[in-house]
Amino acid sequence: MNTQLIEKVYEEVRRKIASGEIKANDIEKTVKELAKCENESKVKNEIIEVKEVKKEGKFMQAPGLTEFVGTGIGDTIGLVIANIDSALHAAMGIDKKFHSIGIIGARTGAGPQIMAADEAVKATNTEIVSIELPRDTKGGAGHGCLIIFGAEDVSDARRAVEVTLKELPRTFGDVYGNDAGHLEMQYSARASLAIEKAFGAPVGKAFGLVIGAPAAIGVMMADTAVKTANVEIVAYSSPSKGTSHSNEVILAITGDSGAVRQAVIAGREVGKKLLNALGDEPTSTTEPYI
Amino acid sequence: MNTQLIEKVYEEVRRKIASGEIKANDIEKTVKELAKCENESKVKNEIIEVKEVKKEGKFMQAPGLTEFVGTGIGDTIGLVIANIDSALHAAMGIDKKFHSIGIIGARTGAGPQIMAADEAVKATNTEIVSIELPRDTKGGAGHGCLIIFGAEDVSDARRAVEVTLKELPRTFGDVYGNDAGHLEMQYSARASLAIEKAFGAPVGKAFGLVIGAPAAIGVMMADTAVKTANVEIVAYSSPSKGTSHSNEVILAITGDSGAVRQAVIAGREVGKKLLNALGDEPTSTTEPYI
Amino acid sequence: MNTQLIEKVYEEVRRKIASGEIKANDIEKTVKELAKCENESKVKNEIIEVKEVKKEGKFMQAPGLTEFVGTGIGDTIGLVIANIDSALHAAMGIDKKFHSIGIIGARTGAGPQIMAADEAVKATNTEIVSIELPRDTKGGAGHGCLIIFGAEDVSDARRAVEVTLKELPRTFGDVYGNDAGHLEMQYSARASLAIEKAFGAPVGKAFGLVIGAPAAIGVMMADTAVKTANVEIVAYSSPSKGTSHSNEVILAITGDSGAVRQAVIAGREVGKKLLNALGDEPTSTTEPYI
Repeated sequence: MNTQLIEKVYEEVRRKIASGEIKANDIEKTVKELAKCENESKVKNEIIEVKEVKKEGKFMQAPGLTEFVGTGIGDTIGLVIANIDSALHAAMGIDKKFHSIGIIGARTGAGPQIMAADEAVKATNTEIVSIELPRDTKGGAGHGCLIIFGAEDVSDARRAVEVTLKELPRTFGDVYGNDAGHLEMQYSARASLAIEKAFGAPVGKAFGLVIGAPAAIGVMMADTAVKTANVEIVAYSSPSKGTSHSNEVILAITGDSGAVRQAVIAGREVGKKLLNALGDEPTSTTEPYI
Repeated sequence: MNTQLIEKVYEEVRRKIASGEIKANDIEKTVKELAKCENESKVKNEIIEVKEVKKEGKFMQAPGLTEFVGTGIGDTIGLVIANIDSALHAAMGIDKKFHSIGIIGARTGAGPQIMAADEAVKATNTEIVSIELPRDTKGGAGHGCLIIFGAEDVSDARRAVEVTLKELPRTFGDVYGNDAGHLEMQYSARASLAIEKAFGAPVGKAFGLVIGAPAAIGVMMADTAVKTANVEIVAYSSPSKGTSHSNEVILAITGDSGAVRQAVIAGREVGKKLLNALGDEPTSTTEPYI
Repeated sequence: MNTQLIEKVYEEVRRKIASGEIKANDIEKTVKELAKCENESKVKNEIIEVKEVKKEGKFMQAPGLTEFVGTGIGDTIGLVIANIDSALHAAMGIDKKFHSIGIIGARTGAGPQIMAADEAVKATNTEIVSIELPRDTKGGAGHGCLIIFGAEDVSDARRAVEVTLKELPRTFGDVYGNDAGHLEMQYSARASLAIEKAFGAPVGKAFGLVIGAPAAIGVMMADTAVKTANVEIVAYSSPSKGTSHSNEVILAITGDSGAVRQAVIAGREVGKKLLNALGDEPTSTTEPYI
């Protein structure tokens, strides 16, 4: 490769650091930004535009399948099968009473989709058949997901998938990331069956989720959360227990709604500080909701 | 992106290779860089060309080891050990009758390597000792692989590895990918011992594989495949069952050869439509063979 | 971050591309090279400088938490909790006698952190409570880690974390990588309790680690290592046994210190040749120490 060019750019960068014209920290950030090919905000606008266009159906490769419901953040896809094949039905271990299934799958995220699915089961006549958590996030430290709703009627299954997709922008609100890892906080004033299935939390009570990656940050967040308010630990998962070998600590808590909310927020604040010590300031994927 | 620019850069690069100014190794790196940011299909062809150059042995960093057999798509490497160390032999749990082993390992792909190895065991006097599936694909949603052939004679082991590497361009033919995930279809008119070892499929019968990632797409592909033709499910794997927590659904089917082929093709078509709803049009890694 | 600065750099780059002074491709490559810390030693120094500056507290986003100890290579973070919450204490399964814990977590690397932690337990009044190995390395083929030290006194826990972080530049010395995979070698003249906990190796004896990814390369390195010198196999791990489905073969050996060292070096040399057959020449993360 053109070593001289690299040298030249490098020298210029060094000069500017030396002269105080730019700060070393900024440069590190700058090259990372550039390395991603382009000016962030520009490209982000581009991406948003493209997504908008897609939504308008101009360029989107609409699959033209009645089974397709929609897509969402984190490469989430929502599908529905009106009458699942009986042999596959058996192989998947689905209860015989469900002819129809709704499917939510994603590359990035499990918590946001589970919390959204929890709203969906509240709002529809469906049950959660299964929640599976691949080790994914496209090279990140966490999970993807595969969530299956069972329904006796296909319109119920479709509605559950629609509600889930609609909730995702909210439930991604307290997912924060940077180059070094991610944080996720979730809160529900009243847990329903998806949360029960995924974490064993009591239905009808307030529920909170505090996740940090790399896992060391999650340990610290968990300790902070449970010390902050009078909450009960529902589950504590770590790389070798309760996760699919993801680099996360996942704390699930229950209790009085005010206490749960307070604990989650305390975990979030310490997590943001620690993740920032490893990289850029972690920012919300959408808009914080807790 | 600016196709003319790619064209121009490529021409210059080609010129420099010809003149010996830069090495093929460097070039491969460059096109990979481009592949991350630029016109997909074009660059993919570029990469194949570069690999072709490598095969001709012009620029390759030949390891100079008698154990080295060759490399292939997906960072696949083929090796052979004439007399494996006896203590290691025991630690690996290999049958004592095999002094020699052939080794196929890869970062990306398990199905293509298993299908290729199946042809190898048909063609040589070897057995499949083990097939292991790491969660890999370099940040993607699937597996890598480690396949070990046992042989009494080193020339048999070497031949098995050679046949496997030679089959790879074909067995990667129905592997499709885009930024959001991947699809894989495989078909064999007559399954042999590698397919039996990996999926429990009956030897001598037609065999088909239908894989979708993210897993939600795989569920839909599986349902379509089994509804299309009269086939039997050999195995159904999902993130928490039968995979190494990969974000895939893997359907293995057997039956009449025409039916298996028809089912696999039907799964492929629905998979391509769904993956396209999450990203660019999925394209074959090499040339479709089914 | 300084958006104006990014804007400025971007504008300059754009200008130079427009004027033909530099080609878009070259710039893209250049910043990527820089971002990857290439033009290796030069940029490495720069980054070390940046880190030094960070340490001086000039630009670092110091978390302002007494629990924060420091950071290191591989997105390693070191933390300490003086009095871990009693409910969390139980959920984590920590021995009651430890009120204080030290925490080492990382996205990339398990071996380097374990070897460093081994020095830490030698040097401090702490015990290894747990070592967990997520499947991570940010899209690579290996592990991250979560190591917890137990101590009766917080100053001991802090000291253990400090020693671990300080040892990391050394223990990353025989970690080699390229685009296709990685190699790791470790050597200790006298194994202590962290090595015993992680690999089951005998305390007080020489210990060696030989790791190759993709796993096929690790098989070959393992065979070479054990054939080279009279060593004993402590553990042999592969994608489906002893790893978190990582694409590695991990050989742990013990024996006479000279023999272990010789075996490790032999494994390293064959590994470097094989990994080079799949990509660029593998280079040390810091400085080789074995």
